[in-house]
Amino acid sequence: MDVIVVGGGVIGAAIAWRAARAGERVTLIDPGGDDPRTDDKASLVAAGMLGPVSESVFGEQDLLDLNLHAIERFPSFNAELEEATGHTTGLRTEGTLAVAYDSGDLAALDRLTDFRHGIGLQAERLSARECRKLEPFLAPNAMGGVFAKGDLSVDNRRYLAALRAAAAAAGVQRVTGIVTAVDEGQVAVAAPGESGTGPAADSAAGGPARVLTAHRIVIAAGHATRQLAGVPDAVRTAIRPVKGQILRLRHPGSIPPVLTHTVRAIVQGHDLYLVPRADGELVVGATQEERDDRDVMAGAVHDLLRDAQIAVPAVSELVFAEANAGLRPGTSDNGPILGPVTGTGGAAGGDGSLIIAAGHFRNGIMLSAITADAVTAILGGQAPHPAWGPFQPGRFRVPDRPPAAGVSLGGTASPGEATL
Amino acid sequence: MDVIVVGGGVIGAAIAWRAARAGERVTLIDPGGDDPRTDDKASLVAAGMLGPVSESVFGEQDLLDLNLHAIERFPSFNAELEEATGHTTGLRTEGTLAVAYDSGDLAALDRLTDFRHGIGLQAERLSARECRKLEPFLAPNAMGGVFAKGDLSVDNRRYLAALRAAAAAAGVQRVTGIVTAVDEGQVAVAAPGESGTGPAADSAAGGPARVLTAHRIVIAAGHATRQLAGVPDAVRTAIRPVKGQILRLRHPGSIPPVLTHTVRAIVQGHDLYLVPRADGELVVGATQEERDDRDVMAGAVHDLLRDAQIAVPAVSELVFAEANAGLRPGTSDNGPILGPVTGTGGAAGGDGSLIIAAGHFRNGIMLSAITADAVTAILGGQAPHPAWGPFQPGRFRVPDRPPAAGVSLGGTASPGEATL
Repeated sequence: MDVIVVGGGVIGAAIAWRAARAGERVTLIDPGGDDPRTDDKASLVAAGMLGPVSESVFGEQDLLDLNLHAIERFPSFNAELEEATGHTTGLRTEGTLAVAYDSGDLAALDRLTDFRHGIGLQAERLSARECRKLEPFLAPNAMGGVFAKGDLSVDNRRYLAALRAAAAAAGVQRVTGIVTAVDEGQVAVAAPGESGTGPAADSAAGGPARVLTAHRIVIAAGHATRQLAGVPDAVRTAIRPVKGQILRLRHPGSIPPVLTHTVRAIVQGHDLYLVPRADGELVVGATQEERDDRDVMAGAVHDLLRDAQIAVPAVSELVFAEANAGLRPGTSDNGPILGPVTGTGGAAGGDGSLIIAAGHFRNGIMLSAITADAVTAILGGQAPHPAWGPFQPGRFRVPDRPPAAGVSLGGTASPGEATL
Repeated sequence: MDVIVVGGGVIGAAIAWRAARAGERVTLIDPGGDDPRTDDKASLVAAGMLGPVSESVFGEQDLLDLNLHAIERFPSFNAELEEATGHTTGLRTEGTLAVAYDSGDLAALDRLTDFRHGIGLQAERLSARECRKLEPFLAPNAMGGVFAKGDLSVDNRRYLAALRAAAAAAGVQRVTGIVTAVDEGQVAVAAPGESGTGPAADSAAGGPARVLTAHRIVIAAGHATRQLAGVPDAVRTAIRPVKGQILRLRHPGSIPPVLTHTVRAIVQGHDLYLVPRADGELVVGATQEERDDRDVMAGAVHDLLRDAQIAVPAVSELVFAEANAGLRPGTSDNGPILGPVTGTGGAAGGDGSLIIAAGHFRNGIMLSAITADAVTAILGGQAPHPAWGPFQPGRFRVPDRPPAAGVSLGGTASPGEATL
C-alpha cells in the first residue's frame, strides 16, 4: 500500500522506516536540510534526554503510562536501528542525577523520589558527598540529589541521521518539498523556497505546487501541522509552538569530561539540564517560551550559561560551539496526538486515510519508537498499544471563538480551508 | 616593480590596493576565506572602533602621535575607498560615549578628559541625565560619562571587503595560499591545507610549496608573522598573539536600535565596548587574553553578555548572532612594526627587499590607512610620515634565551631558519 509521510524529523523518519520495513511503499516528504540554524526541526535542537518522569507532570497518569511504555521500548528499537544501519546513536545509560541547591529543591526531589518508587521506577536519594562522588565538578553548594538509574539519553542528531539512513535502506523514497495542503489520498507539495512556513496560497491559486497521491497519508509535521490546510481544525488549533533555546558546548583537548551523567537542577527558579555526549559535547538546555520565532536571544544565552556555571562552574572552561532555537510541538493538554482523523467539512480524512502523529512536545525522541510502532500497526489494520488510547485526535474540539465586536454569540464557524 | 604582499587582512589589502594604485605590480597572497569561524584574520573579528586615545595608554606619546595621524587620515582614505569601489564601509561619526558606573570610574574618566583636552581632542563631561539623553537605554545606575565626539567606527567586514574590491579593481593579483618562508625576493607558498599554521617543513624538505618571486616583499601577516621562516628573529620574537573574543548581536524587527553611539564602560573591572552598526548589528567586545587558540569559550560569552546587560539591560532582547575569537598581533612594546628589515644570518632582506607591516595589535583598522600610505612611500623610494619613525623593526633585539640546564651562559644562538 502507498503511504506518504509528511515531515522528516524523528517522528516522520521513524514512521517511514518502520512502515517500509513492514512492507508499505513509503514516500517521505520533508523540506530537507540538517542545519539547526536554518532548518526548522525540533529534532535538531533537542537534548535527547529520555526520562519518563522528570519531563511529565504529576497526576498526568495517561501521559506517564505512555512514557513508561516508551522508555521500555526505546532500547530495543534503538538496537534494531543501529543493527539495520551500522550507525551509533550515542545511547547513554548512566542515568540522570537531579541536584538540589536549597532545602526547597531537596523537598521537591524527595517528592519526586517517592513518586518514582510508587510507580516502580528506580530512584536513589544521595547526599551532597555522594552526588560529588558521581560528579566531581558539581558546585560545592549542592545540598543533595536523586539518582535516576533508568533514565537514558541519546544523541539527537546521530539518532535522526540513523533513522534517515534506515528509512533509505528500507526503500523509503524521499521527496524534498513543503507540503502545503492535504486531502483524501493527496498532498500538495511546493519546492522549498516557493512557499513560506504557512500553507501556501499557491495551491488554492493553482500555483506551482505538484500533487502526490497515496492510499494513506501520515502527518508528522510537528508544530507546522497547525498550519497545514486539510488537517481538521480541532487538531490544528490544539497544537502550538513552544520555543526552546539550547546550547552545545565542547570540551577542549586539555579538559576531561566535566560530567558523565545527565544532570538536572533548578537554578534560580529555572529548570536546567546538562547532557553529556560520548563525543565530548555537553548540551545545556533549555528555555521554554510560548513564542513562534526561532531567534536565539542574547538574554537566553546569558541565562543558560549563568545557570550552567552556577551548577557546574567548570562549564566556563568549555568551548561555546552552538546556540540554537527550535519550536517544539506543544498541545493544549500536553499529550501527543496519534490516530486517524475524520476531516471537518469533508476536506480531508473522511475515510480515515489521514493519520496524525504530532504534538510530541518535549518528548519526541523518547516517543518516536512507540509512535512508529503505533502508526505501523494502524497502517496494517491493527490496533496500536493501549497506552495510546487517550491520545487520539478525536479528544480535541474546535475552541469557541471570541465573538467579534457587535456580533451576537453562537457562531463557531471554521475558517475556509484550502482544497487542492 | 613587482611587489608581493603576504597577508590579506585589512593591513595587507590596504597596502596592496595603494601600491597597485601607485603603479606597482602587486600580488597578494592569503590563505583566503571570509568566515570568522574558520579563517584566522583579526580583521574579521574586530569591532571597528577608531579611537586614538581610549585604546592607547597614557604616556605612550609615540603611539599617541601615530594614532592621531591615523584618525586624521582615515576619513579621506575611506572616502577614496568608497569612491573607488562603490562600496559603503559603514563609517560612523556619532562619537563614543564612555560611561562610569561608580565614582572611581568617574575619576578615571575625568583624567581621560583632561588628557584629551591637553592634546587638543574633543571630550565633553556629561551628567548621568545627559548620558541617558544621548543613550536612553543605558542602565539607570550610570553615574556620568564623557562624550568623545571625534571618535569614529567602521564596519570591519565591509571595510575589508571594500579594500579587497579596490585591490582587485586596481589590478592586484590574488593568490590563495599559505606563505611558509620568505627570502630575498622570494616566497614559498603552499596551498591551503597543505601546511599547518606554522612554517611548513615542506619547503625545507623540498615539498609541494611553489616559489614566487618579486623585487619587494611586504609581510602583513599579523600574528602569523612570528611563525614565518626568513623574517628576522628580532621581529618574530617581538610579536605575540593576543586572543580576543567578541559577540555580534542583531536587533529583531520589533526593537528600535538600543544604541546610536559607541559606548565604552568599565563593568566589574572589565573594559567593555558596544559598537552599533548602521545595519542593526551591535558588536560587544572584547576579551583580551595572552593565548593563541581561537576557541570561543563559554565563560567569555557569559561574561560579555553579563557585562553588556549590566551596562545596557535591553541587550537581553537582542538576537545572539555570532560569537567569535581572533588573534590580534601584539608586540613587546605595544607599537606596530613598519619598515624594511635586514635579515639575520643573511636569510632574508639583506638588501632591504623585505618590508614588515605587522604588529598592529588592537588598532589594525585605524592604522590601516596610514600603514598603506607608509609602505607605498617606502616602495616608491620615499620616506614615510615621521610619526612612523619610532616604529621601525630595528628597535627590537633578539631576547637572551634562558640557558639550558647544565650549559654555560653566553650563547644566544638563533634557531636554524628554513631556507627555500
